[in-house]
Parts: sequence; structure tokens; C-alpha cells
Amino acid sequence: MTKTKYMFNKVAICGMGVMGASLGYDLLNKNIAKEVYGFIRKPETGEKIISLKLATDAGNDPSKAFSDADMIVLAVPTGVVSEQLKLLLPFVKKHTIITDLCSVKQKVVTESEKILKGKADFVGSHPMTGTEKFGFSNFIKELYKNATCIVTPTKNTSLSASEKTIKMWQILGSNVYKMTPGEHDIGASLISHLPHVVSNVLMASIWSEKEKIPGLFNMSAGSFRDMTRIVESSPELWADIFLNNKKEVLNSIKVFQKKLDLFTQNLKHENVSDILNYLNNTNKSKKYINAKI
Amino acid sequence: MTKTKYMFNKVAICGMGVMGASLGYDLLNKNIAKEVYGFIRKPETGEKIISLKLATDAGNDPSKAFSDADMIVLAVPTGVVSEQLKLLLPFVKKHTIITDLCSVKQKVVTESEKILKGKADFVGSHPMTGTEKFGFSNFIKELYKNATCIVTPTKNTSLSASEKTIKMWQILGSNVYKMTPGEHDIGASLISHLPHVVSNVLMASIWSEKEKIPGLFNMSAGSFRDMTRIVESSPELWADIFLNNKKEVLNSIKVFQKKLDLFTQNLKHENVSDILNYLNNTNKSKKYINAKI
Repeated sequence: MTKTKYMFNKVAICGMGVMGASLGYDLLNKNIAKEVYGFIRKPETGEKIISLKLATDAGNDPSKAFSDADMIVLAVPTGVVSEQLKLLLPFVKKHTIITDLCSVKQKVVTESEKILKGKADFVGSHPMTGTEKFGFSNFIKELYKNATCIVTPTKNTSLSASEKTIKMWQILGSNVYKMTPGEHDIGASLISHLPHVVSNVLMASIWSEKEKIPGLFNMSAGSFRDMTRIVESSPELWADIFLNNKKEVLNSIKVFQKKLDLFTQNLKHENVSDILNYLNNTNKSKKYINAKI
Repeated sequence: MTKTKYMFNKVAICGMGVMGASLGYDLLNKNIAKEVYGFIRKPETGEKIISLKLATDAGNDPSKAFSDADMIVLAVPTGVVSEQLKLLLPFVKKHTIITDLCSVKQKVVTESEKILKGKADFVGSHPMTGTEKFGFSNFIKELYKNATCIVTPTKNTSLSASEKTIKMWQILGSNVYKMTPGEHDIGASLISHLPHVVSNVLMASIWSEKEKIPGLFNMSAGSFRDMTRIVESSPELWADIFLNNKKEVLNSIKVFQKKLDLFTQNLKHENVSDILNYLNNTNKSKKYINAKI
């Protein structure tokens, strides 16, 4: 009989939405954790969570959840992180590692380090994956496989905590990149938050003019479909992200604004060669990125 | 022996790019036209065009191409339409129908009616389909099947010419909608041209900031991919479209600008309920459109 060597004896996951539930399933299924406690608000869903093999135990008892956890994962919206940390604080040990899954990092990491005051290590994580569906029953096996995961240790993070968090994501199949929380937030504001702003603004614009053209939506083709797909994401989740990364999102909008003005001026003045240059440059940039990622 | 009843005895197609070549193939393959003449600049490609069954004859002889054509299709960029019409004008008969495939209609239709002066009927068409590839060898069988096709007859167009053009597209499998050229250009500027502007501006914005964050493109996920896909379209084609629909594209950008300002102000002032309303409204609009198209 071979004895399985687990990376964690016990992981507690706060929040069993799609992200938390999918994580629980993989941690157990891949023998990364021996036990997973699903910390949930409504204990009546616990049985179902256990029967789906998303956790070995589930409930809303902080002592049972956190007392002997080696790793605690906060799979909750940014706005709830502080509250959760205060709840688990009395139970953490020096070796406990705490990570999160939030799309914004500077605010989360700063607040978390302040609350924990060195009592346990906080390592910010942002696995860039998900679905527009919600609730544990929509969990996805191997959700984290081939996903990009940004991990944001700081000078306050112990090397072992940082390495163990990175290793967890790698075993789950993610491609891990290290950044500072600040770098993450600038990068995410450009490549993820700005596209979401633009998609919503585009949808709002087209919708506001629909009375002008009867049958407007019959004219929709692939470009409209692709450019408005992410509008279907959760409004609550994205309001939370935009507000918690306000400064960087506003900066990215400013950059966009300048580039939009440039395009508009070129078109207004029919600067044919400038328009062609603009389009040739974006075309080349896109091809360069496609070849790299 | 049954005799095939063709809709057209002969169709001349000006320009054998992907759009023209795919049309030629279907017209012959579906027995819609008995003969198709591919009017091309470089006669040396004629043999290959004929061997691929994209046309029954091909070359650059206007007399051979147009003298006995019942239908002439201008599968050329907007900027070349007038020149082509002047070339074919000496050969058209009163019953000849001329249509085009351009993405812009007001300018094309006005100029065409002016040149033709009632000598033949011009019926504007815009089949909203295509590919980012080019050249006749990239032709696609049934390219027009299930595509939206806008047809734009005016008060100068005879009913029979309009009906015959609509029937041709319907037999090719397109969903045909009638609009005035002006309505088409407003609608297309909103639902097709504006998304192309926005996608290019987004790409230009992200690219301009790439030095700030090493590994920025490693952070790209589905939202970035979808929002920049159409940046790979032909710069020449799109410069031509933007310039030929300048007034309406600038109007659509103005609408977008206003909606972007509103979003930015809400975020700047942290008007949480306004941001949530904005996102909930776009979400509902998108779901409404999805259910309709």
C-alpha cells in the first residue's frame, strides 16, 4: 500500500461559488489536499457540496474551518475580503498561508497585510479564468488548467509561503507569473478591465440609437457578437472590480480616450495615410501578440 | 431530358476576390446563372478561375463581359465603383441589373444612379459576410448562406430589378432586409463600423502602454482575445469603409464618446448605483438582442 503525499493536510475555502467549488474539486481529485473545508454562509447547502466532492466538510463554523488549515483561500468578492480575514484571524497559526482569487490586488494585499500583522502569510493570487455562470453547482473540473495565474508576493511575504502558493497553482495546471500588486493592477486595468469598460460602453451606445433604424439588430454580424460578448458578465462582480481598481481603470480610460481622439481627428480631416498607418500598426501589434501568447 | 431554368442567362462579376469568386461558384453550382464572366484585371489568372468553376469565362474585355449580361455584380472596393460603372456603361441594356457588394451604400447608390442616368437599374446590396483572407483561391462555397444581406432600392429603382436582386440573394441562402441607403449607413456605422473603430483604438491603447508592465501580454485572457479579433481585418478595406461612411462613423463615435464620459464620471465619483444600473442595462440589452437574432 502506497501512502499518498499531500501538499496540504487541510485547505479551507471561503466561498463556494464557481471559483471556490472548482478549486475544491481539483484539490481533492488531484490529491493536493487531504481535506477541504467549504466555508459557506448557508450551511444547508453543505451536504450537496460534499456529495459533489467539492469539499470533505462544509459549514459556517469558523473554528472548524480555520483552526487546523494549512492554506486558506478567499474565493469571495474584493469587498468581503477584510471581513473574512477578521473572522479567521483568531484561528490562524504562524504557518498558515492565506491567498485570494480577486481581480484587483493592491487594495486586497495592503488591507490583508494590515489585518494579519504578520500573524500569518498573505499571498495575493489572481487566476485569470472563470465563467459567466454562478453557484457551486456550475463548478468546472480543471478550471485552473492552462489559465494564467498572477501571484503577487511583497517584501512582507515569506519565501516559503510564496513558493508554496505558486506550486499549488502550478500543480493545478496554471501558468504562474509573479508581479507586484501595483504592476498587476495596471496590467489588469489595460488588458482586462478596459476591454470590459469598452464592451459595455459600445453596447450602451448601440442600444441608445436603436430607434433610429428599424431592424438594426438584423444587421449584426461577427464583429458585433464578439465585441459585446463580455457584456453578459455579472454586473455586481464588475462594478466591484472597477471600483476597487478605480485609479488604474481611470488611467487606462484616459489612454483610450487619447487614442480615440487621434483616430477621430484623422477621420474628420480625411488624413488617409494616417488612418492607414493607425490600422496597419494595430494589425501588426495584434499579429505580434498572437505569435507570442 | 429536363431543361434547367436559369434565373440569369449571364452574370458578369467585376472583381474575383473572395466575395466575387464565392458568388461565381454558387451562381454556377446552384444553376442560378447559365454563364458567369469573371471581369478581372489580370487576364492571366482567367484559366485558373475557370478551372475552379468560379466562372465560365474570364478576362478584361468589357465588350465580352457586359454586352449580353442580365446581371452585373460589382465585387470591388467602394472607391472603384464609379470607374467600373463608366467602363461598363456603353454595353448595358435597359433590362440589365447592376448591383454591388459594398459596405457603404449612400455614396455608392447616389454616384451609381448619377452615372447610369436610367440606362440600367442599380440596386445596392450589402451581404454582411466575408473572411479576413483575400484572393479568388480563398473562395468559400455557400459564403452567402445564412448571411444577412441588406438591399437598398430607391425611388429610381424599378420594382422588377429590386425583386430580382432580392430573389438572387434569397436563392443563395441570405436573409434579406430592405432599407434606404441612408438607413443602411447609419445602422452599419453603429453595429459594424463603430465596433471596428473601438477594437482598433483598444488595441492601440494597450500596445502604447506595454512598456509599463513586463509580461503584460501574458495576462491576456478571453476578453482581450475577443475584443481585438477584428483588428486583423484588412487595413485598406477598413480605411476605405471609414472614409466612405465618414459622416455616420463620426456620429456613432460621438454617441460612444458620450456614453464613455458617463461611465467615467460615474466611476470617478464612485456612484455605485449608477455604475450598477449602467452594467445591468447593457446586460439586459445584450440578452434581449441574443433572444431576437
